[in-house]
Amino acid sequence: MDVIKVSGSSRTSAVAGAIAGVFREHKRAEVQAIGAGAVNQAVKATAIARNYLLEDGIEVVCLPEFTTVDIEGKERTAVRLVVEPR
Amino acid sequence: MDVIKVSGSSRTSAVAGAIAGVFREHKRAEVQAIGAGAVNQAVKATAIARNYLLEDGIEVVCLPEFTTVDIEGKERTAVRLVVEPR
Repeated sequence: MDVIKVSGSSRTSAVAGAIAGVFREHKRAEVQAIGAGAVNQAVKATAIARNYLLEDGIEVVCLPEFTTVDIEGKERTAVRLVVEPR
Repeated sequence: MDVIKVSGSSRTSAVAGAIAGVFREHKRAEVQAIGAGAVNQAVKATAIARNYLLEDGIEVVCLPEFTTVDIEGKERTAVRLVVEPR
């Protein structure tokens, strides 16, 4: 399962569709963002995806956590939002 | 139960302590943020609070949603992170 990487310029509805799609297939999705703008888009997309899935009778929860990622040889702290069934 | 309001300049550890404290008392907490910087701090604080509570053997989940708030007579869209038991 691929991690859904979000940037500050990602469209929330597009990311929400990706989250819902990955969740439907894998019963789990992971969204990763670095920086305030990206984290904001990721959270808004997760809220929208939650509503998409609620329309199908599926309730998901979000588990926010920190993770370290390698960006061009430098360690960066990313926020990861793990989406799981309630 | 008061909503915990977060700004872009809020300290994540202080907000995390507030979330854990409110959760311990009420078995629920609500965190509200407007704007990318505030949402970023709110999510990071929620991740930290989740770890604080895990140390006590309590697992919480986060339910992100949109809400409308009145700021000096103007309607603004806020992000609300509802923290509930798993």
